[in-house]
Amino acid sequence: MIFEKRIKNIFSNLKREPDAIIIKNSSEPYIDDNFFYVTGLDKGLFEGSVAALRPTGKVDIIISELEAESAKKSNANLNIYKNGEEFNEFFKNTLSPLKNIGLNFSGISHRDFCRIKDRCPNSEFVDVSEAFAKARLVKDEFEIKTIKEACSIADKVMKMIPDILHEGIHEFEIAAEINYLMQKNGADESAFKTISSFGKNTAEPHYSHGNYRLKSGDFTLFDFGARFRKYNSDMTRTFVFGKASKEQKDMYETVLDAQRTGFDAIRPGIEAHDVHDAVSTYIDNTRFKGRFIHSTGHPVGLAVHDAGAGFNSECKVELKENMVLTVEPGIYIPGFGGVRIEDDILIKKDGVEILTKAPREFIEI
Amino acid sequence: MIFEKRIKNIFSNLKREPDAIIIKNSSEPYIDDNFFYVTGLDKGLFEGSVAALRPTGKVDIIISELEAESAKKSNANLNIYKNGEEFNEFFKNTLSPLKNIGLNFSGISHRDFCRIKDRCPNSEFVDVSEAFAKARLVKDEFEIKTIKEACSIADKVMKMIPDILHEGIHEFEIAAEINYLMQKNGADESAFKTISSFGKNTAEPHYSHGNYRLKSGDFTLFDFGARFRKYNSDMTRTFVFGKASKEQKDMYETVLDAQRTGFDAIRPGIEAHDVHDAVSTYIDNTRFKGRFIHSTGHPVGLAVHDAGAGFNSECKVELKENMVLTVEPGIYIPGFGGVRIEDDILIKKDGVEILTKAPREFIEI
Repeated sequence: MIFEKRIKNIFSNLKREPDAIIIKNSSEPYIDDNFFYVTGLDKGLFEGSVAALRPTGKVDIIISELEAESAKKSNANLNIYKNGEEFNEFFKNTLSPLKNIGLNFSGISHRDFCRIKDRCPNSEFVDVSEAFAKARLVKDEFEIKTIKEACSIADKVMKMIPDILHEGIHEFEIAAEINYLMQKNGADESAFKTISSFGKNTAEPHYSHGNYRLKSGDFTLFDFGARFRKYNSDMTRTFVFGKASKEQKDMYETVLDAQRTGFDAIRPGIEAHDVHDAVSTYIDNTRFKGRFIHSTGHPVGLAVHDAGAGFNSECKVELKENMVLTVEPGIYIPGFGGVRIEDDILIKKDGVEILTKAPREFIEI
Repeated sequence: MIFEKRIKNIFSNLKREPDAIIIKNSSEPYIDDNFFYVTGLDKGLFEGSVAALRPTGKVDIIISELEAESAKKSNANLNIYKNGEEFNEFFKNTLSPLKNIGLNFSGISHRDFCRIKDRCPNSEFVDVSEAFAKARLVKDEFEIKTIKEACSIADKVMKMIPDILHEGIHEFEIAAEINYLMQKNGADESAFKTISSFGKNTAEPHYSHGNYRLKSGDFTLFDFGARFRKYNSDMTRTFVFGKASKEQKDMYETVLDAQRTGFDAIRPGIEAHDVHDAVSTYIDNTRFKGRFIHSTGHPVGLAVHDAGAGFNSECKVELKENMVLTVEPGIYIPGFGGVRIEDDILIKKDGVEILTKAPREFIEI
C-alpha cells in the first residue's frame, strides 16, 4: 500500500499525466534510487533493471534471472528475462505502445535515454525528475523510522571516537574503525566515503582520509553516515586533540552558534534559502567572513544528497513538515584547518527535531 | 606525460576527431570515472566538475572553489568557479564556440546532456563512450602497478577469513571485518558492497549480507575487492564451514576446473567470447548444466566493471596484452547454495598472470 501511495503521489506532481513512468537502471554506479523508492527492495544490485509505474499506483519490474531471488521480496509485478531477446519482447509489448512516457532525466544516462527512444519511436518523453524529487522530499512514516535508525547507528559510533584517538594514529585507520563500528552496529554499509581528517587537512571540505598521523593540537574532523535498508544518515563532528588554541575555540564556537541559528530559523512555511541566509549572515558578521564556502544543508534519504531542495542561497522551496535535511555550517582556513558541525533534522509542526544527538559541545580530547 | 598519452589515445580511437571532449560530472553517484582517468586525481568528489580534453593531450578542468585544494594535485589546467555565473562564463567563452563536441553518453545523465546542448546551440555532439572504453581496456604501467596493489590488499584479507569464521557469527559481521581489514591494510575503501553470504544465500549471486548466522556444513562465499587510489580489485572465494557434503565438493571442483579452463583459454588474439564459451561449455557438460547464470568475467580498473569488453557469449573484442579482467565461473542451486571462484588476471604475451593469489584449493574450515 505504501508503494502505491508513493507512486500516486509522484504522478500527482505532474501537470500532464504520462501513460507510464519508466525507471531504467544502467550499470553501477548509474543505478536510479527511485527504483528502490517504488519497489521497497532493500537488497540487490538491479543493474539493467526497469520499473514501469502506472498512474493507478501499480508497478511492473523487469529484471534479469540473476536477481530473480532478490526481487521476489518486492510486491511489484515481476517480469524475469533470461536474455536480451526476452527483455526486448517485454519492451515491445508493454512499453512501446505508450504515447507519453515519463523518465527521470537526472537518473538516466544519455545512452539509455537514446536506447529507449529508439525502442519507442512513437512515444513522447517528459522529464519527471522533479516529480520524484518533490515526492521524496517529504518523508513517510516508514522512511522517518528508517532514517532515525540510520542516525542512531552513526550517533553511537560518533560517541566512541574520542576513545579510539591517540597520538600518531593515521587518518585512514580511524576511517576504517568508523566503518567497522557502523557495520557492527547494524549499518548495511557506510552512507558515503567516510571523512576522517586531521590538522590542516580539515580545511578541505571533501578531503576523505590519508596517511597523516595525529599530533597534539590538531583539529580532527569526522563526517560520515550509516546506510540502513538503503536509507542514509550524515553527520559531522570536529574535536581538538589536546589543548585547543584560542583561534580553534573561536572557530568552533562560531560554527556552533551558526548551527543554532539555523535550527532556530527552520519551520514549515519558510523558504529553504531563508535558513542558509540566516546561517551565512551569522558567519559573515564575524571575523570569519567568507570562510563558509558551501551550502548549509541538503535533504537526506535514499540518497545522501536527496534532490529537490537544499539550504542554499538560491532554493525557494517551501519547507514542510516531515522533511529531513542536514544543517552543517563550517569555517575553513586553508593551511590552518576547518571546523564543521552537521546534524540531520526532521521538520516538525513547530520547529526541528534533531535526529543525530551526539554531543556538540566543544571537545578537547 | 602519462595523461597526455591517455588523452591522445582516446582521440585516436575516434574516426572523426571532435574539437574537444567534455566530461561532465553530475552529483554522486553520477560521477564519470573518466574524469579521474584523464586528470590523475585520486582524492576528492568533484561533483559538478567538468573536464575539457583537446586532441593535443591538454586538459582543462572547471571545478568549484570547494575542491580547489584537492584539485591542485592534478597537472590539469585549473579553472575555479565561485558561483554559477563564473561557471557559465567559462562554458560560454571556451566551450560554446566548439563545432564538434565529444561526450561520454554512458557517463552523462540525460539532463546534463540537455543542459550542455542548450549552452552550445551550434555544436554537434558525438558519443565517445567507446573511445574511452577502448583506451581504458589496455592498462598502462601505472595502472597495472596500482591494480596489483589493490589485488594484494584483497588477497591478504581473503587469507585471514578462515581464522575469523566461527559458529553463529552473522554474515554482516564478517562483511564488517573484511572492510575493516582492507582499510587497515591500505585500501581507500571497499571496491563495492562486500558480499558475505552463508548457506543457501550463496545461491544468490548479488546477495550482499544479512542476519543469517553461520552453522556447520554451510557454504560461505566472500566476494569483495579493495579500492586503492581509485583502482579496484575483485575476487571471490567459497569455503565450506565444517565437513563438506559430496554435492558441495562436486560443485566446487566443477567451478575450479571451469576456472582453469578459462585461464588456459586466455591469450592475446582470441575474442573475449571464446573464453566464456570454453568456461560455460565446460560447466554445461557436467550435471550442473544450466546452473552457470552469468558471464565469465569483466574488465577491472577505475570501475569494478570496466566497460568495453567482457567474457560473455556476445563479446567479439580481441584480447590484448595488458588487459585486466576477472575470471569468475559459478554454479548456483536455489534453496541449496552456490559456489563462485573469482580472480583478476593480467593478459600477458603468452597467457595469463593471476593477480589475486589467495589459495583456490578446496577449503573446509
